[in-house]
Amino acid sequence: MNKRWEYSGFGIPDDFFVRGKAPMTKEEVRAVVLSKLRLKEDHIFVDVGAGTGSVSIEAALKLSRGKVYAIEYKEEALSLLEVNAKAFGVENLEVLKGRAEEELKKIKGFDRIFVGGSGGEIHWILDYALEHLSKEGRIVITAVTLETLTEGFKALKKKEYKDVEVVSVGVSKGRSTGNYTLMEAQNNIYVLSATKN
Amino acid sequence: MNKRWEYSGFGIPDDFFVRGKAPMTKEEVRAVVLSKLRLKEDHIFVDVGAGTGSVSIEAALKLSRGKVYAIEYKEEALSLLEVNAKAFGVENLEVLKGRAEEELKKIKGFDRIFVGGSGGEIHWILDYALEHLSKEGRIVITAVTLETLTEGFKALKKKEYKDVEVVSVGVSKGRSTGNYTLMEAQNNIYVLSATKN
Amino acid sequence: MNKRWEYSGFGIPDDFFVRGKAPMTKEEVRAVVLSKLRLKEDHIFVDVGAGTGSVSIEAALKLSRGKVYAIEYKEEALSLLEVNAKAFGVENLEVLKGRAEEELKKIKGFDRIFVGGSGGEIHWILDYALEHLSKEGRIVITAVTLETLTEGFKALKKKEYKDVEVVSVGVSKGRSTGNYTLMEAQNNIYVLSATKN
Amino acid sequence: MNKRWEYSGFGIPDDFFVRGKAPMTKEEVRAVVLSKLRLKEDHIFVDVGAGTGSVSIEAALKLSRGKVYAIEYKEEALSLLEVNAKAFGVENLEVLKGRAEEELKKIKGFDRIFVGGSGGEIHWILDYALEHLSKEGRIVITAVTLETLTEGFKALKKKEYKDVEVVSVGVSKGRSTGNYTLMEAQNNIYVLSATKN
Repeated sequence: MNKRWEYSGFGIPDDFFVRGKAPMTKEEVRAVVLSKLRLKEDHIFVDVGAGTGSVSIEAALKLSRGKVYAIEYKEEALSLLEVNAKAFGVENLEVLKGRAEEELKKIKGFDRIFVGGSGGEIHWILDYALEHLSKEGRIVITAVTLETLTEGFKALKKKEYKDVEVVSVGVSKGRSTGNYTLMEAQNNIYVLSATKN
Repeated sequence: MNKRWEYSGFGIPDDFFVRGKAPMTKEEVRAVVLSKLRLKEDHIFVDVGAGTGSVSIEAALKLSRGKVYAIEYKEEALSLLEVNAKAFGVENLEVLKGRAEEELKKIKGFDRIFVGGSGGEIHWILDYALEHLSKEGRIVITAVTLETLTEGFKALKKKEYKDVEVVSVGVSKGRSTGNYTLMEAQNNIYVLSATKN
Repeated sequence: MNKRWEYSGFGIPDDFFVRGKAPMTKEEVRAVVLSKLRLKEDHIFVDVGAGTGSVSIEAALKLSRGKVYAIEYKEEALSLLEVNAKAFGVENLEVLKGRAEEELKKIKGFDRIFVGGSGGEIHWILDYALEHLSKEGRIVITAVTLETLTEGFKALKKKEYKDVEVVSVGVSKGRSTGNYTLMEAQNNIYVLSATKN
Repeated sequence: MNKRWEYSGFGIPDDFFVRGKAPMTKEEVRAVVLSKLRLKEDHIFVDVGAGTGSVSIEAALKLSRGKVYAIEYKEEALSLLEVNAKAFGVENLEVLKGRAEEELKKIKGFDRIFVGGSGGEIHWILDYALEHLSKEGRIVITAVTLETLTEGFKALKKKEYKDVEVVSVGVSKGRSTGNYTLMEAQNNIYVLSATKN
């Protein structure tokens, strides 16, 4: 339970985070998302729909001279996010409590943005991101529904973006049941990414 | 082509590496492998069957006070490995040219080991790793065949290991063909990992 | 090579068909497609973009009192289709040589339609199918691109259809290499299906 | 609910079966299993661990001159199996209530056998099947655990078998949630098959 206090490296196991019932980007997909973000140490990074904060925290640990804004409006997720941020001792993570439409406007500009949980406002968020992302900035979107996949992909194919990529990541994890190891499937995640021109 | 000279962050696109025909652990699986390794900055890390060096190099960039040993015996892979190491300017990566059985013995001890390409010697390597890995050290194995999966999993279930885990990672990547985006499947990779007691 | 002459059952291995370079719906996906078609013995079934004819032939063998129309315009596929139809001795399969737009009009009505290869004309085909499919008729579409998935799914969600379903099928097949069994991935196929109201 | 009474074709939707909590081989995997079985109309087919009977019933409908033995020992599954068999009106299906070790001995010989649920007795079942399967008979095994995969594959690689095949089938199915379609993953199934020499 307190394992996370000992953390001092790269790559964080899922059980180092306190989760409750809030959705969490699991380790394998989180690793892919963080790789696609192509973070540099001094970046300003925005995590829209931060949930338990697993992506925000792992990013904050990398951004030694940068900053993470974690936007979340659900009460339960917010309290977990704060517990987790405290547990990992990250001081360059600011939690913005509220809807993306309101909270994004409080940030002056950003180099990287991750849209993992968009609650139906994805069109607005993607339009806003396109406008306020720095040149050569990166956007990463995860989708679990066909509609978010389609909308996200359409948004990234606009001419302001380059290096548009869509990958589908399917993870199964072995779970011991007696002498057997059942390979349990997680839902497939589509990871979309692009660089702003 | 020279994009890699500009690299200064976390997460490396596949086309930053010169590849030739040597096998390469591709970005998404590389991200999962690196996460499972749980590297810390001062670690000694051994990459057995380093191929083009993508895992070795991404690890070396993280190990600011540590060192990477990249073992490889195939001539073509070796020359690519050196080109890539030079391109990224990593100075804490030592290439060991030869078979794992010989080269592993030249390393005094190690904290992390990745067995991505084992050329049939996997039993010997896993036995040796078990003996020479530091306490709380981590081993990660990737398997693309059922036999390596079975042998690797059996080796990790010995009582000297804890936190034994097997995940299967299936990645498809969109490729543009005219106005269409074909989702091209990569072979499923089994990623095995464990911590030494 | 002549194995197919001995065929007299349900479920056909891929190597019973002569293939050349024409695309073929492989056994596992073919089995899923045929299941989703819910064929009855007296059905009129149309296979649009029949390729080597694997779906057409397996359907024809089931439709003891029905008929299959296999539409294809590519020369190479057409000759394979005829070789295969002859080899299996199916007499209730008519090959229509030409574009779907022309050939579909030659068929009076149909109970089942499979759109596996649409060459860009998918909108027209789906509109035509919707109009000419019999009541309680079934349509099945396979998609390997995100665009066909999106367009096909949108077409099926019109109010004239019920039981709209989308499944993604990912198959890997073991291939022996020495003492090892490499699990080779086939591209993921989206299988869309619906019943006409 | 009573849809299954109207059934008169090929390919059966999952909701045509009454399920309860007993495991069921779902439509897509069932279609692959039935294809791999390569049933002929006069076959004797044994379904070991028949569960709700979905494979047994779909096979029985094909075996117009053959017979299906469905072995099952769990009380709840048995009652569902009988409800389902009655609903589809299959008369060539005999339910054998008890453990495979006992029940298999009551069958004189068989042309096809499917081992979908083996409850730990898989070694014995595979040895028995090898001995009592008719020449050119087929065995199909489904595995959801690494151990059953390994054991099943090892059993099929004995010299008495040919055409040994292992495929992995991963299915995700769209589920509507408001205006979104969530692609829900089912656990990956390994389908092993072989022909007796």
